[in-house]
Formats: sequence, C-alpha cells, structure tokens
Amino acid sequence: MSGYMGKHLRVNLATASVEEEICSEKILQDFVGCRGLGAKLLLDEQKPGIHPFERRSKLIFLTGPLTGVKGCPSRYSITTKSPLTGTILDCNSGGKFGAFLKKSGYDYIVFEGRAISPKYMLIENGEAEIRPADDLWGKTVFETTDALQSRHPKCSVACIGPAGESLSFLAAVMNDKHRAAARGGVGAVMGSKFLKAVVVRGDKEVKISNQQKFQEARKDFLDTLRKNITTGEEYPQYGTASVLNLINECGMFPSKNYQEGQLSGAYNLSGQGIVEKILIRRTACYGCTIGCGRLSRVGDTVGEGPEYETCWSLGAACGVNSVEDVFLANILCNDYGIDTIEMGATIATAMELSEKGVLKEKVQFGDGKAVKDLIEKAALRTPGLGDSLADGAYRLAERFGLPEVSISVKKMSLTGYDPRGAQGMGLSYATSNRGACHLRGYMVSPEVIIPNFLDRFSTSGKAKWCIRLQDFGAAVDVTGLCRMTSFAIKAEQYANLLRAVTGFMYDKDNFFKLGERTYNAERWFNVREGFSRKDDTLPHRLLEEPLREGPSKGVVVKLEEMLNQYYELRGWDKEGIPVRQNLLDLGVL
Amino acid sequence: MSGYMGKHLRVNLATASVEEEICSEKILQDFVGCRGLGAKLLLDEQKPGIHPFERRSKLIFLTGPLTGVKGCPSRYSITTKSPLTGTILDCNSGGKFGAFLKKSGYDYIVFEGRAISPKYMLIENGEAEIRPADDLWGKTVFETTDALQSRHPKCSVACIGPAGESLSFLAAVMNDKHRAAARGGVGAVMGSKFLKAVVVRGDKEVKISNQQKFQEARKDFLDTLRKNITTGEEYPQYGTASVLNLINECGMFPSKNYQEGQLSGAYNLSGQGIVEKILIRRTACYGCTIGCGRLSRVGDTVGEGPEYETCWSLGAACGVNSVEDVFLANILCNDYGIDTIEMGATIATAMELSEKGVLKEKVQFGDGKAVKDLIEKAALRTPGLGDSLADGAYRLAERFGLPEVSISVKKMSLTGYDPRGAQGMGLSYATSNRGACHLRGYMVSPEVIIPNFLDRFSTSGKAKWCIRLQDFGAAVDVTGLCRMTSFAIKAEQYANLLRAVTGFMYDKDNFFKLGERTYNAERWFNVREGFSRKDDTLPHRLLEEPLREGPSKGVVVKLEEMLNQYYELRGWDKEGIPVRQNLLDLGVL
Repeated sequence: MSGYMGKHLRVNLATASVEEEICSEKILQDFVGCRGLGAKLLLDEQKPGIHPFERRSKLIFLTGPLTGVKGCPSRYSITTKSPLTGTILDCNSGGKFGAFLKKSGYDYIVFEGRAISPKYMLIENGEAEIRPADDLWGKTVFETTDALQSRHPKCSVACIGPAGESLSFLAAVMNDKHRAAARGGVGAVMGSKFLKAVVVRGDKEVKISNQQKFQEARKDFLDTLRKNITTGEEYPQYGTASVLNLINECGMFPSKNYQEGQLSGAYNLSGQGIVEKILIRRTACYGCTIGCGRLSRVGDTVGEGPEYETCWSLGAACGVNSVEDVFLANILCNDYGIDTIEMGATIATAMELSEKGVLKEKVQFGDGKAVKDLIEKAALRTPGLGDSLADGAYRLAERFGLPEVSISVKKMSLTGYDPRGAQGMGLSYATSNRGACHLRGYMVSPEVIIPNFLDRFSTSGKAKWCIRLQDFGAAVDVTGLCRMTSFAIKAEQYANLLRAVTGFMYDKDNFFKLGERTYNAERWFNVREGFSRKDDTLPHRLLEEPLREGPSKGVVVKLEEMLNQYYELRGWDKEGIPVRQNLLDLGVL
Repeated sequence: MSGYMGKHLRVNLATASVEEEICSEKILQDFVGCRGLGAKLLLDEQKPGIHPFERRSKLIFLTGPLTGVKGCPSRYSITTKSPLTGTILDCNSGGKFGAFLKKSGYDYIVFEGRAISPKYMLIENGEAEIRPADDLWGKTVFETTDALQSRHPKCSVACIGPAGESLSFLAAVMNDKHRAAARGGVGAVMGSKFLKAVVVRGDKEVKISNQQKFQEARKDFLDTLRKNITTGEEYPQYGTASVLNLINECGMFPSKNYQEGQLSGAYNLSGQGIVEKILIRRTACYGCTIGCGRLSRVGDTVGEGPEYETCWSLGAACGVNSVEDVFLANILCNDYGIDTIEMGATIATAMELSEKGVLKEKVQFGDGKAVKDLIEKAALRTPGLGDSLADGAYRLAERFGLPEVSISVKKMSLTGYDPRGAQGMGLSYATSNRGACHLRGYMVSPEVIIPNFLDRFSTSGKAKWCIRLQDFGAAVDVTGLCRMTSFAIKAEQYANLLRAVTGFMYDKDNFFKLGERTYNAERWFNVREGFSRKDDTLPHRLLEEPLREGPSKGVVVKLEEMLNQYYELRGWDKEGIPVRQNLLDLGVL
C-alpha cells in the first residue's frame, strides 16, 4: 500500500467550512499530483460553462508526491479554469510554498464557493482554518507577506496583490514574495473568491514507501543533475536567461511585439549580462541543487529575478534592452502580483497600437519608463488605459479594433521564442492546453538548443516530437519536481523516484503514459468548454508575415500540415477532438 | 425561372473594390433572403474562430424577396458574427432602408476586409461606390443622417454613431434615424471596418413573377392584417407596448434587473400611457399598414419610440416608471447608435452592482437621470465606468467579479419577459441562436397573450411549441416581411406571397422547412464556434431563485427537462449538436 494518500482539505469559502478528505487510490495512481491530479479533479468536479468567478468555480492548490521530499526541487501548482483563456489552467511555482504545504500535512486543497469579505487560509501542522483578512485587502504582495510572516513565524505565504483584488486577467498568485504561479489570470480567480492568502507551515516528514530504493534513486538523480552542462553549470551560473544570446543569434528573440526577431543590445538582458550588471547571488527553491534563481540589486531595490521570460516580456517585447529597467519592472510586477509575461506582451501590444495611431496615448517601443508607468496603471486599473491593460493583450487589441495585433493563442500571449524560427515550437504554442505557453512542449530544446539535432525550419517529424515533449513535460509536472530537471533527467530516473516514494509501480514506459493521460484530460476539459481545431492556431503575423531581417527571415509557420499529423498521432479526430475510446483507455473518463 | 436573382455587391473595404454578382438559385430557393440567406452565406464564407473585428470577418446587409414590394411591411437585416456573444448574429430593422436598398437594384451587400480610414457606401440606382467619410467620423446618428441626406437627396441612410465608432458591444446600426438593427454589437463590427454609413436610393420596381397571384395574395394578406385584433387595432393604436400592462399583471415584467416581477407605475410605460402622455402620432415602415411606430414628444425633443422592449430596458429594468425619462433616454440611444435593450440591461446590472456595494459609483434603481448619464458615459466610453458599460452587462458584471448578476444567455441580456412566469419562454431564451433574444421563438404569445391556450407554468409540450415558433419566426424573417405580421398571417398566406413574387414553389408545408433550415444553419455556425448544451442555459437567478412577490412568485424555470425534449425533437444529440445527416437533408451542408 502506498503512503501517498492524497490527503486534502475541501474548503468552502462561503461557509468557512474546512473538511479533511483523502483521494481515491486509482485517481492518485493515474494522475499522481500537481497538474495531472488537478486536471482530473477539475474535470470531474466542475461542469462546463461555469465562469471562473462564479461561486461554482473551483481553485485547487496541489503538490506532487515528490514535493517537499529532501533533495527534490519542489514545486506546487494551482489548477482552475482561466478567466483569460476559458481553458483549463494550471500554474506552477517554486520557492518554499509547495514544500511547506506538504509538510503542513496536506497534499492539496480544493477551494470552493466565494467569501463575501476578505479571508486567508491558515494551515499549521494539520490545523486548518479560515481567518478574516480585511486588514490585508489592498496591501501589496510584499506588504501582505511581511504582515503574515510576522503574525505566523516561519510560515510560507502565497497571496494576491492589487492585480488579483481588481480581478485583472494579468493577476498572478505570488509565493515567498518573488515566486509566481503566474499565467492565465489565476490571481483573479483567487481575488473573486475574496481569498487574499494561503499561509502554510509544518514539520511533517513526507512518507517514503521504500527508503533504500529512494536513496539510490535520489543519488542517481542528483549526480545526473550535477554532471549535466545545463543543470550543473549554465543554470547555476547564468540562470534561465543563459539561453538568451543563442535565441537572439538565431533571430527568434521576438522584439517590438513580434515585429522583429532580434534586439540590439540583447546581451544586457542575457544571463551573462545579469551576472555582470545586477546579480548579488544565486538562489534556489526548496530542495533544489541547481539554483537557477537570481537575487539582484538595482539602486536600493533588491529582489529575485529576472528570468528569461521576464527579460523577454518586459524587455525585448517592448524594445527595452536595459536590464536595470527590466529588473525594476519585474519587482513592480511581483509586488503588485502580476504575470510578467502577459504584462510585457500587453504593454508591447499597447506600444504597437500607439505606433499604428489607434491608441491615443503615446507609448513608444524602447521606453523603459513607460513600461513601469503602464504596469502601475494596469495594477491599479487606472480608469481608461489601465482598465484596458488589466484585461490582457488580446482584449486590449480587441478594444481598439485590431485583435490581430495581440500575438496570442486562445487569448494568452506567446512568450519569448518566435516560432517563425522553430516550426515545432509553433505547433507547440498552437496546441498548448492553456493558451500560448512555451512550457507545454519546449520544442526550443531539440530545435535550437541541442546542436545539430532537428532542422528548426523543417516541419518534418515535428508533430511526433511535439507530442513526446508535451507528454514528457506533463509527466514531470505531475511529480511535483521542477521542470528544469528535465534538461538532464530521463523518464526512468523520474519513475524510479516516483516509485520509491509512492510505492506505485511506475516505470520508464508508463511514465510517458502519465503525461499522455494528463494532456488528454486537459484537452477534454477544453473540448467540453467549446475548444477545437479552430482554436489551435497562431496569430496572422506568424502565419502570413515573414520576418524581414535576421537569421530567421523570410519564413512563416506552416502550421496546417503539422497540425493534421499531430491530431492523427494523438488519436484525435480532424477537428482535434479526442476519440472517446482513447479517453476511456487512458482512464480520463 | 424566378425573377429573384440574389443580385448583390461584394465590397472589399480594404481595396474599395465593388463587384456585382448573382447568387446560386439553389441557395436562394432554400434560404430565400434576410436572416436565412445571411446564415448560409456566413456559414459558407467565414471559417470558425475569426474575430468579428478581424479583416477576414464579413458584414452582410440583406433584404428578402418581399422587401420593397408594394403593400409589404418591409425589413432588412444584417448578418455577421457577434462581438458580444461570439455566435452568429442577425439584426432586423424596418423604416425605409430595406426597401430603398432593394429599389437601388440590389438584394444584398457583402462587406469584406477593413478600410484604414472612414468610408461610406453610396448606391444610387445600381451605381455603387465607396466614398471617404472622414468628415462624418465622430458625428452622431442624427448628424450623420442629416449630412448625408442633404448631400444625397431622397436617400435612406443606415449608419453608426459614436458607440459603433468606439467598438462598443452595445452599438447598433441605425437607419432612418430611429430604426435600429440593434443587438449583439453589430454597430461595432461596422465600426471596426471603418464603415460609417450605407446610403441607398433608387426607383427600380421589384420584379413580380406572377402578378395576378400576387394581387390575390396581397389582398388576402392585407385583409387579414386589418381584421386581426392585434395588427388591426392594438398595434396601430398602442404600438408594441400595448401588451405591457398584461405582462405586468402576470408578474413577469422584470424590474430592477430581474429582482422583481412587477413595476409600480408600469401603466405609465404602457401603450396606453404613451398615448396619453407623449404620443404625437403613429408612424409606419415602408409598405406597412399596421403602423406600430410611435412619434412622440417630450419638451422640445421629438422622435420615434419608445417600443415595448425599450420601455422595459430603459424603464422597468432600471426601476424607472416615467415614460418621459424613458423616451428621452431612448432618443439619446438612437442618436449615439446604441441598442436600447442591452444598454438598459447593462445599466440595471450596474445598479445592482452598486446596490451590492461592489461598484463604488452610486447609481440607484429608479433614478431616470442616472440612466441618461450612464448612456452618455457608455457612448463616449468615459474612462472608468463608461468603458465597462460599453462592453455590455455580462462583461461589466464579470469585471466586478459577479458574472451571475448579468441576466444573460451567451453574454446577451434577456429582454422584458421574465421566464419564471412562462416556462416555454425560458426554453426559448436558452436555445436562441444569438443569445437571449425574445424574437427567436415568441412563446409569450401562446403562453400569455392568447387567453386560456397554454399553461404558462407548465413545461409540458413546451419544447414542441418552442421549436414550432422558432421555425415559424425564422421563416417569416427570411421573407423580408415584418415579424409583427405573424400575429395574424398564417404559413399558407406567407407562402402564397413568396411564391407569387419569386416563382419558387413554396407552400404551407415547405414554409416551415424554410425556418427549420435557417435555424439549423445558425445552430451549425454556433457549434463550429464551440457552442453546445453548456451554453443553452439561463442565469442562476432564473433557475434557482423564485420571485418573492406577485402572480409568478415561487417558481423557477425547470429548464433541463424541456431542453432534453427540445434536442430530441430537433434531431440534435444530447449535447445539442445537430446530426450531420439531418443537416445534409436540410441542405445546410
């Protein structure tokens, strides 16, 4: 029998009731934790057609079986329906929160209903209650975290800032001040429930099913991470932005709202630039030996960041190449509780709308001060432009009559890899289950980062690779481990760790199945909400307008041919709908 | 051979190209005109997933074969994809415009692409061109109409006002100043194409296939209208608001945003009240012998209206019972180019949000001045509340975290009949193809208006009735005749007129088929866009919260049982998806 029980809390915010439950073993075994378990729970518990702000919508905080386990780089995730996209949403974050939640005694928390005044949830060593948070409402992320940590020493805090309170679709849930479960407006769902924060602390040890096997698996895991060039050298030294110069050299570092593929002065924003200009030291999440986190300083401002995606979004996307400006804008977003990717993409969209003359306010590409100014406006929903910015890039562009200026899929903005320079990445964005996310299937790895591996301009074989990476990524996500480990770790090694901890019979082969199952569960959730082939597309610019300069010039994404193959290999029909028997076989239904 | 050719213009606004074409006879015969032909054209020409503001979206102005025919109350309609709902949208309007378009030599116009500066379309007796409208942009509906009519004497003008220019989802297309193709944000689609107005004039006679049969059919048609109590007495005398007192007496006149079922002082807003207080004289659309239109005056303000729905939306929904206030608000909406229904419902939503304390601005039910103030704010998109109001009731409520406060289906607000007092009307709202519209299947007629006909509180047999009325209504709409004729006219009489004019072999039986075909074509468009059973629902208030007072108290809509039966009778599956073979048999595919 497994020691992993899926022990969880079911919290009704309307009545402040808190119930302890355990999860069925079959579901746990099939969907494991974090993103996978969240998808299955939401699929089973939430009917289609429910607005994320409605009282019937659910918000689920989850850990995986490896979260909080010693030597395991630990993550947690939040699953809900996205107010930005209308799809299923899971947001994954590091720091200490996930491990602390696990050590408080629970594997996950299901929030239901809606409070009518501000609340926070406190869990200390298995004691859980809902408390009033009227005094915290209106406070920023840093203020809230400080206040709660002084009230509950040694706890970890996940909370929303003003953006979440004002129901902005840019709103993140921030934990440990600088770590973000960021995308898709997850913070707005928390805000709509009047849930300001979740505070966790505990010293419970995670039960290990087979200690000896676990010790072996962990040693192998840590050795592999140490020996790998990415997880053992580049990431520790330069962080996630270590890859930035390569991406820029390939002409696929999207600049000025995807109008250009290279940024002059990109080096400033790279991992190397960060080390030279603003880094104090590296930081690491709970259990992590990689330590890709950055602690930086500009003037009197000290904080974590920036990561690759933030360097892109608050930098290149807006035509900004000052790492100091990017860092300060990053910290502003963290304090307001804002997704830096969607924020930067939205500002970039505003800049292009301004360039085109339809937005009256003059906001110019390259103006770092304007970026900070627009973040403030969005966070506080300043009447006028602030209100529009707070709704994200797609709705901003829609409001000004040019929806195609928003470079997004399913209303979620693309990130810092121009798929005109990597065809498979285009397919990955188009078929991502939460809108244009780069982390569903990170095709940049085989197409760009690994030398001489796949031809980035070819579409041949890309559907198969994309599926493999989407499934692999999902499988890693369900464990509760950080995805960054997957630069080094193989399926068998993950399965060894999982098996040792849970006692369930995972191996190399069924490890991929875990990912396939999760991906199909998410897809099925979206299909029930009305998504299909029509939504698996890319913005006009990427399908019809080649870049005019640089090493990726003259190319557009040839999506249709890859998409047909993708559906066939997935066992979905021509409209992208999973076949019922496959879902039954996978245990999704 | 039919003299009805479906002669039309295909206008690309990006290039200002204007091409003359005719339509295939098969399509004309099956889909006839207006709403039916529009649905088929949009289905065939516009792929799913295209935003209504995108350059690939189409906007189609259509007449029916009976539009502009002497003695026929003439309508035109506009078909596009709705920015408010994401469904197919057709908006129907009277006045002179439809007849004048027909007499200019064309049955319909397909607008494609997007201009980059303001334009208007001029059609005079078969000569058509795109002209600059820079001088008209920014002008109100009345100003625009006056300017164009002085430039092109004896023309009819359909145009947008400031609401359409600012891409408000409340924006209507107004013709002949006071007539509105109103709902679903059709004016915003026109605005997004930079098309300010369509100006038409002509003296071409509509070809009649069989003059003798036509004379007979028309005589029968006009006699029937004259003898019927609704079309011969009540509507001429009291307009569409003649029914208002009855609806209020039944406790299903939704007041204060559907929180109550009766309005104190409702009589003021009724047809009788209008006659006593503000009416100058009745008015009639082209070819109409009924004349339900009202020309009214309050102080120095003279104009058309108010109709029943406006008395409800700008009156009862907002708790206002002054017909003077309603009339003045109505004229304001006409001049700004705003759908009075969605506007009133949005203001009512704001009032409830204010009552609940989530909207800071104090806007109280019953405050007629506040209604006018909020119309101004919405029309001009005043930063802050104006911006939110301009997006319609659903998005306003969503922005404040209480989406269920918007009383809407598919994001379109319900109208002035509370379905808690008429179960079949609930089914009709839920299954309407363009969001909560009362005109898709006007169940109020058999459930409330016709004495002792159907039990309004029973669900028994309602699915069958609803389908019959939806199909009948759609069949009437495709002819180009006014729907108000259907209080008196039977299927056979419509078929006689249609057959005589077109030469196509319509009769009593295949007349209903015309409606069924149109309804299924619209449904299929929506299904392709992701709509299904999950969207065929009603707001929480109507499904779970009975009225506390009045003759409809204690009841909620029992939707599920009616819906199951409805799908079965429609030949749709349990998710509300039409079966492919049925669509093939109907000629939809």
